[in-house]
Amino acid sequence: MYELFIANKNYSSWSLRPWVLMRQLEISFEEQLVTFEEGGSWEKFRSFSPNGQVPCLIDGDTTVWDSLAIAEYLAERFPQVWPENREARAWARCAAAEMHSGFSALRNICTMNCGVKVELAKIPRNLQREIDRIDELWCLGLQRFGGPFLAGGEFTAVDAFFAPVAIRAKNYGLPLSESARAYVEQLLELSPMQEWIADALREPWREPGHEEELKSAGAIVEDLRQ
Amino acid sequence: MYELFIANKNYSSWSLRPWVLMRQLEISFEEQLVTFEEGGSWEKFRSFSPNGQVPCLIDGDTTVWDSLAIAEYLAERFPQVWPENREARAWARCAAAEMHSGFSALRNICTMNCGVKVELAKIPRNLQREIDRIDELWCLGLQRFGGPFLAGGEFTAVDAFFAPVAIRAKNYGLPLSESARAYVEQLLELSPMQEWIADALREPWREPGHEEELKSAGAIVEDLRQ
Ligand SMILES: N[C@@H](CCC(=O)N[C@@H](CS)C(=O)NCC(=O)O)C(=O)O
Ligand SMILES: N[C@@H](CCC(=O)N[C@@H](CS)C(=O)NCC(=O)O)C(=O)O
Repeated sequence: MYELFIANKNYSSWSLRPWVLMRQLEISFEEQLVTFEEGGSWEKFRSFSPNGQVPCLIDGDTTVWDSLAIAEYLAERFPQVWPENREARAWARCAAAEMHSGFSALRNICTMNCGVKVELAKIPRNLQREIDRIDELWCLGLQRFGGPFLAGGEFTAVDAFFAPVAIRAKNYGLPLSESARAYVEQLLELSPMQEWIADALREPWREPGHEEELKSAGAIVEDLRQ
Repeated sequence: MYELFIANKNYSSWSLRPWVLMRQLEISFEEQLVTFEEGGSWEKFRSFSPNGQVPCLIDGDTTVWDSLAIAEYLAERFPQVWPENREARAWARCAAAEMHSGFSALRNICTMNCGVKVELAKIPRNLQREIDRIDELWCLGLQRFGGPFLAGGEFTAVDAFFAPVAIRAKNYGLPLSESARAYVEQLLELSPMQEWIADALREPWREPGHEEELKSAGAIVEDLRQ
């Protein structure tokens, strides 16, 4: 049985990726949730994850400590992690790797917080460019491979990699085209996404660092957390 | 025949990764070098790369626009891109993906410049932590899989992903353990690395943005460029 270490569902965008991937593809695992620590979780997370970060997948003697590496590791056993079509697979890997290495303005300004809606104080130029790129990328994928998922008819790792963006898009009201907004809604309706968000809203923990980041983005319009 | 789009060898750390991977594994390709543009290369690079960035691999009708996606794309045809051993392969993918998504202090403070040696003004705490993590990661890999490469006896994509770090380690005199320094030297001695660096030193182009970044890191000790 796989064990998947994650942090707070409310905050941990990187944890969401393999979690939603495995749930949606019905790859069973035991969830190990370890909460963020005030002032940094490195030491705490080092007890199970070599780089002191989540997510981290444990498969017997094998430790896989990065979300993209987890996708590729699982893909060796579950080919449905990536699209079956060769072209779609190459495209999906490009889009996922572009997300993995980029979009720092989106990550830093619009930090993930499942339960809180924010009205952005402003959209700086670098953030706007990243939003435009995501919009373009999604529309291209949906059009080229026929939807309803990014690289064709099935949910694959590339959709999992953009799942945290869907939560951000909704909660920060990011300006997106109609097709991109429809894709956001579709991701948010998936039952694993609903389950993740419901769990997040029930979490009692508030980590001051993450709460601060949120406030510096703009005005809090609604807090749906218990 | 593959076409690999890269930017200036002197500056473009991400371009170096697939370039050295393909050269070292003797996967032939045609090199397309497109120089950085003052003030941003997005528009220029968009003519061949969907996200306006390099590297970008063209294989007939297929465009693969991210260095990690290029590695996985090539691995489908050339399995030697990753280690043959299952454990080593999982580890190599984790280390490469960790590099892909992290180490922002190293990237931002110690920007790649093949021809220039810099004495760092200071090593801030976040940079020191990243250096320590890389040192630890390298030593673990070398020890666990027996070296001389990170994940065993053969050069694989994980070594390619750390090749730009080897250039930075040397040129910024990063404080590393003896084993890590030996690994740096070994990477730098590979003939594709020698070829890349020699080409970089002969480049006539100076891009003001990249030159500025360099100066803000510390004092320039030596400039080996023509
Ligand atoms: N390369 C990683 C990045 C993971 C990452 O940054 N995780 C954050 C949480 S979402 C973390 O563990 N941070 C540690 C901390 O806050 O101390 C991946 O994709 O798995
Ligand atoms: N995800 C990318 C990152 C590539 C990247 O950031 N490339 C830089 C050059 S090394 C770039 O093209 N920058 C565009 C610019 O300077 O305008 C990859 O690994 O391929």
